[in-house]
Order: sequence, then C-alpha cells, then structure tokens
Amino acid sequence: MGSNLARNMARHGYVTAIYNRSHAKTVALIDHHGDEGTFIPAESIGDFVRSLARPRKIVIMVKAGAPTDAVIDELAPLLEPGDIVVDAGNAHFPDTVRREAVLEKLGIHFVGTGVSGGEEGALNGPSIMPGGTRDAYVWLGPIFEDISAKVDGAPCCTYVGAGGAGHFVKMVHNGIEYADMQLIAEAYELLRRGLGASAAEIGKIFARWNAGELDSFLIEITADLLSHTDRHTGKPFVDIVADAAEQKGTGRWTVQNGLDLGVPITGIAEATFARALSGRKPQREAAARAFPDTGEGWAVTDREQFIEDVRQALYASKVVAYSQGFEQISEASLQYGWDIDLGSMARIWRGGCIIRARFLNRITEAYERDPNLPLLMADPHFAETVGRSVPAWRRIVGEAVAHGIAAPAFASSLAYFDGIRQQRNPAALIQAQRDYFGAHTYERIDRPGYFHTDWSGDRTEHLQ
Amino acid sequence: MGSNLARNMARHGYVTAIYNRSHAKTVALIDHHGDEGTFIPAESIGDFVRSLARPRKIVIMVKAGAPTDAVIDELAPLLEPGDIVVDAGNAHFPDTVRREAVLEKLGIHFVGTGVSGGEEGALNGPSIMPGGTRDAYVWLGPIFEDISAKVDGAPCCTYVGAGGAGHFVKMVHNGIEYADMQLIAEAYELLRRGLGASAAEIGKIFARWNAGELDSFLIEITADLLSHTDRHTGKPFVDIVADAAEQKGTGRWTVQNGLDLGVPITGIAEATFARALSGRKPQREAAARAFPDTGEGWAVTDREQFIEDVRQALYASKVVAYSQGFEQISEASLQYGWDIDLGSMARIWRGGCIIRARFLNRITEAYERDPNLPLLMADPHFAETVGRSVPAWRRIVGEAVAHGIAAPAFASSLAYFDGIRQQRNPAALIQAQRDYFGAHTYERIDRPGYFHTDWSGDRTEHLQ
Repeated sequence: MGSNLARNMARHGYVTAIYNRSHAKTVALIDHHGDEGTFIPAESIGDFVRSLARPRKIVIMVKAGAPTDAVIDELAPLLEPGDIVVDAGNAHFPDTVRREAVLEKLGIHFVGTGVSGGEEGALNGPSIMPGGTRDAYVWLGPIFEDISAKVDGAPCCTYVGAGGAGHFVKMVHNGIEYADMQLIAEAYELLRRGLGASAAEIGKIFARWNAGELDSFLIEITADLLSHTDRHTGKPFVDIVADAAEQKGTGRWTVQNGLDLGVPITGIAEATFARALSGRKPQREAAARAFPDTGEGWAVTDREQFIEDVRQALYASKVVAYSQGFEQISEASLQYGWDIDLGSMARIWRGGCIIRARFLNRITEAYERDPNLPLLMADPHFAETVGRSVPAWRRIVGEAVAHGIAAPAFASSLAYFDGIRQQRNPAALIQAQRDYFGAHTYERIDRPGYFHTDWSGDRTEHLQ
Repeated sequence: MGSNLARNMARHGYVTAIYNRSHAKTVALIDHHGDEGTFIPAESIGDFVRSLARPRKIVIMVKAGAPTDAVIDELAPLLEPGDIVVDAGNAHFPDTVRREAVLEKLGIHFVGTGVSGGEEGALNGPSIMPGGTRDAYVWLGPIFEDISAKVDGAPCCTYVGAGGAGHFVKMVHNGIEYADMQLIAEAYELLRRGLGASAAEIGKIFARWNAGELDSFLIEITADLLSHTDRHTGKPFVDIVADAAEQKGTGRWTVQNGLDLGVPITGIAEATFARALSGRKPQREAAARAFPDTGEGWAVTDREQFIEDVRQALYASKVVAYSQGFEQISEASLQYGWDIDLGSMARIWRGGCIIRARFLNRITEAYERDPNLPLLMADPHFAETVGRSVPAWRRIVGEAVAHGIAAPAFASSLAYFDGIRQQRNPAALIQAQRDYFGAHTYERIDRPGYFHTDWSGDRTEHLQ
C-alpha cells in the first residue's frame, strides 16, 4: 500500500522520495514504475531524510503498533522543528495521541491519518482522513486532496480534527464497514434460505439493488462475488470458502470505544461478535449437535415481495449502523475536544473507501440541514425512508425469528430502533433494582435529586 | 462494605484489626458494633500493621483505581515478606495483575478478590472469589470460607486461580448480572404492554416465577420492587423512577474483554448498551419525535399462554447469557493460564451474590458431567430445557418485533442461539468480501492453506 501511495503522488507530479527497510522493494518499484513520475530512491533512512525539502513531509506506511514506533524512533533524531511526519497506517488512535505528544516536544508535527481504499484505492485515489494540527494540514492538504478520490469534483479528503481524530474516524469507518458486511451476509442468507435460490441468482438480486438507494461498493462486489464459480469444483465460490470470518482489530476497537463513550453502537457490536462466533469451532459443533438445524420447511410464497422486504430491512438496518457510528464520532468529538464536522466525514467517504456509497450524500445533506442533529436517523430524509421501511423490516426479522435464521444485526438494529424511540424505557426497573441491592440511588421523574429507599427497613425514601 | 466485612469476621471469632483514613468511622464502628467480637481499632496505618500477627493478613476495601494504589503504596513499606494483602474492591483485573507483580518483588502476596453481595452480603455472608497464589489461600481460605455464604452446607468461596483470576471472575459475574437485569426488564415490559397489567400484577407474576426454575435473588427483588407504591404520589414506585440506568464499569469491562478474547458475549453486550441507550436523552427525544410510538393496538388474547411464553423466553435467554459468560471465563482461563474450575464458579455463586439462583446448581452439575464442556447450553440438561423453550422464545421475540417493543437482549440471545447452532454460516461471504477488497485471503472447505483470488485480474486462485 505504501508503494501505491508513493506512485499516486508521483503520478500527480510530486517529487517523491522513497525508502524501504528492504532496498530490493525500492529497486523493484523504480524498475516497474519509475517512469510514472519523479522518484528519489534512498538506500538509507539518512539519505531519505536528506533528500527532502523543508519542512519535510514524510509518510510512514508500516504495520500498526511496534513497527510504527520503531520507524518514528529512527526518524525523529534526523528531523528538524517544523518537519511533518504522517502515520498513514491503521494505528489505534490512543497510540496516535501518544506519538503526537512525544514529537510535539521536538517541534515536529505528527499527523495520524486514516487511509481507506485498499491497495487499489491507494494507487488510484483513496479516502484520506488526516488528524494532527491545522498547521500541518496547510502543507499536507493540497497534496492529499490532490491524490484522493474525487466525487462530483470534490476531494475525498479533509482536515478531520486535532490529535487522534483522523485515526479515530478511520476506526469508526471500519466499524461501520463490519456492520455493512454483516448486514449483507444476513440479507444473503435470508434470500438463499427463503427463496431456495442459488448464489448466482442472489448475486443478480444484489446487482439490481446496486442500481437503487443501496448503490455502494460493498453491494457491487457482493454481486460480483456471488456470481463467481470455483474453478476446482464448479461450485459457487462462496460455498467453498470456509465459514469463519477473520478480523484485524478495528471493529473490536470501535466497539470497545463505544462502550467507553457510552454510545450504543449495537449494530457494529453484533457484527463484530458475529465474526468471533463464526470462528468458535468447538462451540459451534457442540451447539449443532445439541440443537440440530434442519434448515427445512421454509418456502417464501410471494418472492418479489420478500426480496423487496429484505432490501428494505437491509436499508433500515444500514441507516441504524451509520446513525450509531456518526453518534459515536459526535460524542468522541465532544469528549475529546476535536470539533469534527460530521457532514464532511460523510462527504470524504463517498469515494475511495470501502463503505463508499450513494447513500452518503444523504448523510452530508442531513448535517447541512442541521449541523447539531443529535441522531442521524431522526433527520427528516431518514425518518421518512426508514419509517417507510418499518413494516418490511418487522416482517423480515419476524421471518428470521420464526424460521431459525440467525440475523443478529438485523434483529439488533430493529430492537435499537424500538428502544431509542420509546417514550418510557424499562431501564427504570434496572435503576430500581440497583438501588434495592446496592444502594446506588435513583432519580425521580417529578423532582430533582438522587434518592434511596430503605428497602431492608421501613421503605422510607431519602434524598441523598 | 469494609466495615460490614470486618464485622462479619469478628462475629466469626476472628480478632479483627480495623483502620480507616477517617478515624471517626472506626470509632463509630466500635461504638455501634464493638460488642459483636474482638476489634483492634487503629488510629494510624502504622499502628494497624503493628497490631497484626504474622504473616499479616490485610484486607483493603476502598474505591477501585488510584485510591487502591494509594493504600498499597502506604502499606507496602510497612510489611514483611510472607505478608498477605487482599484487595476486596472491584478492581479491573489488569490492575490486579500489575499490583501483584509489584508486591511479589517484595515477597508480599497480593490477592485480588472478588466479593459480591452488597453491604448486606458483606455482613451476613457474601460470595468470595479470591485469586493470587495458592500459598496465600492456605492462610486466607479458612477465614474466607468461614465468613462466606453457605448453600447446602458448602461455602460460597473457593480458590479461583492465579493472578487476576479472582477479579476477572467477579467481573464476568457482574456482566452476567447486567444481562439478567436487562432480561428481567424486557420480560416486565412485554408483560406490561402485552397484558396491559399494572406493576403490582406483574410483581405477582414474578413472585410466582420465583417458585420455579427461575428462582433467584433478582427475580425475588423484582417482585418486591414492583409491588412497592411511591408514598408521595401513590403511583407504582417503578413508574416514578427516571428511566435511565446507570453503570459503574464492570459490564463495560466484561464486554471489552469478550472482544479481546474473541468470545461472543452478545447478551451482556446488548444489556450494557441498553443502559447506555437509556441515558441518551437528546437522541431518545429526537427519535421519539421522528418515529412516534403510539404504544397501542396490542392486546394478548391467551394471557396465561403469553405469561408462560415470556417465562420460557426469559429462561432460554438467561441460559444464553450464562453460557456466554462461562465461555468467556473458560477462554480467559486458557489464554491467561489460570486453570479455573468452571463448575466451582457456579457453586460459589449459588449464595451471597447478586446473581444467586437455584439455576446455578444445574451449571455445576453440567461441568461435573463434562469438565471440558465447550458450551454450557449444549449440556444435556440445558439442551433439553432450552430446546423445549424454543417455540415460546420465538413467539415472544416475534411478538416484540411485530408490536414494536424493544427486546434487544431477548432478540440477540435468540439470534445467537440460531447462529451458534447453524451448520453453515454466511461468514463465508464476509471472508470472501475481505479477500476481494483487501486481499486478506480465505480458507477453503476442501483443502488446507490460505488462498487469494486475483479479483481485479483473471480470477485465478493462488495458494498464499
């Protein structure tokens, strides 16, 4: 990904110095792509640093964690105040905050930057989410905006916010991506079991959906994947892939942070746990023996209605996942003092990145209508479209429940929807239980203060 | 809670030295309860330490976090090798691991110990979960077992495992407690909305349930709570309590750790997020405006059947929560090298603690039948009882879905049940997507190795 990002810069006319610990990789890049622009290959990190104009603008693209620290430690003594170091890897944002503090003491700008789009995006235009200081963005912004993806002429890059904001937003992007993928997998499973259709037939349904409001990169590649036939067996490709989904940690970080912030991101959580579940072989085998799933006895009668219902359930659940993710960014921005513009985040995700989708235009518009929107799905556009999808959403979750099809993200999103909109929440009972067994106190609906009832005594109520 | 634990020890005939930063509290304890046993009040921490027989056995009961470190820092220089320091507060287990490593260098045993039961349990017999070294347990075990709750003559205390194991197990206990409470709250809401019944009437239903397999402390206090009338307004008490449930962090820690371990603890996660959701006022208000919940149009016809269905759904969802929690302990025991006996954990939770329940006997029996049981709910007893509850479980989640009653923990538990038992999981599609956009590779069901398909090229498959 680092070499593709370098090529992208060189292709845009930037003189690009390159250095890799393994010099053979540098040589290979020059051999194969040296004619794409002006590269300055360096054999040592010292040569690399000396070849740069000041303030130096250095992009690190190595594995997150210790390798990133090692490169920073090697670079720092060679740099001067005013230089800019960009970490374009998938760092966890608290690491970015820590690294920025260390380099700031040396007068060096450290810019944790989210980059999404995979290898292909890095080369042809990724979505770029830089944090760090505004001063550094003055230097980096023109370059990054230049090499980023463009949608309707607008670059998929903007200054996100101070410190770890860039890596944070990239983390939530990935969390939403987990939810998107799980929802697609559930829609696929429902269609396959409900219709008794082949993978390729379902691929065609996804292709059709991709022409409408679900138009997105993930739906597009799903349609493509499902039509692919395994060349060894002649079976649908998806049927020969082992059914354990792996993860590299960003979904987990997103959920852990949601818990820290106190933002209910249940769709992302269910998606992350669904991947974990898929890999629990001994547990799955024990459960399959104890509770055999015959997988029979379900045949949808009105097929077109069912397909449209699944589409609407997918749409509504997807809005929930984005609404939760944007609430998480909003809460983080508040708690960490980042002042992130939510509408701009949707704008820079419209192209280049994995969750790119037509849908994101609607999110940008929602935050343009109301920059202080407390909940994305309460925006008039989403209130209308989700509201319209509710009957289909209930039918589909109901079918999954009745026929034993696991649809944890669909079901959880609907339960969240019903929970967040209800006037009165049974959490009152939980708070009462907490006061009963732990004297944790409670608030009343009719007067201020924290109260405790003397449950083991005469049951009088005391203002604490 | 510290003074109650001290009184419990003194009542059992142990000479109990006591020290509090605020000497007035020590004086008050002696004034009010000095006749319950032999106390040695100390005015300074030095006097306190000097008054103890060696090896000294010191129980710290202060707030988790910095206050615990402050007390340890004050104590450590006054102690000698072989002395034993017990932290009976609600520490996060990584802190316990860290503290043990520091004190171990001084030859001092540090024993992180979970204690559950609230103030009343501390006085009359809590459930006690000590970690640390086996050597320390030789000294502590007889005392802790003596002062713990007893069920069928057996103490609700045993050696849990090395290092942070005691606090870990207490953490998961609390996570399960979150799930238990949320499930009860959902059952309550369903009964109230479905039956149109009063809080007191539902209290009677819970009281009835408490005579059967759901017999537990939390069901018992719920029945009691629901029958309580607010003296200011004459309304049901639960109706005047503000509907935002608070939390102190152990549920959050449990879910964060489940993510680290890769164990799907979805019931606990939904319960933890449901509390977070209840406190999101601006979001709830925006959603209530955008998606008004009329709360009408649902009247259950067969009331007795409905009540029994809710009971069975509660039972099955509860088994899922415990099954997930025990899987988490099992995985932690493996990954952290703790060698925890799962059946004993269920045994020491039968009395004293918040989740105490008749039900826990069945868990102990399950691990006696098979100490290597990979999944609690696959044990023959639970397979039979949960299997029998499935139709009712589906009906109730279906009713919640159809009528817009938020039941996130019920729905999530059922989705987990259907996910863990299914032979083939749509995670295969997710893994295929990951290979498509990120070259993350996949495994095949028919041959070993990791493969990548050249999606942007000729679609040949390559062994990695």
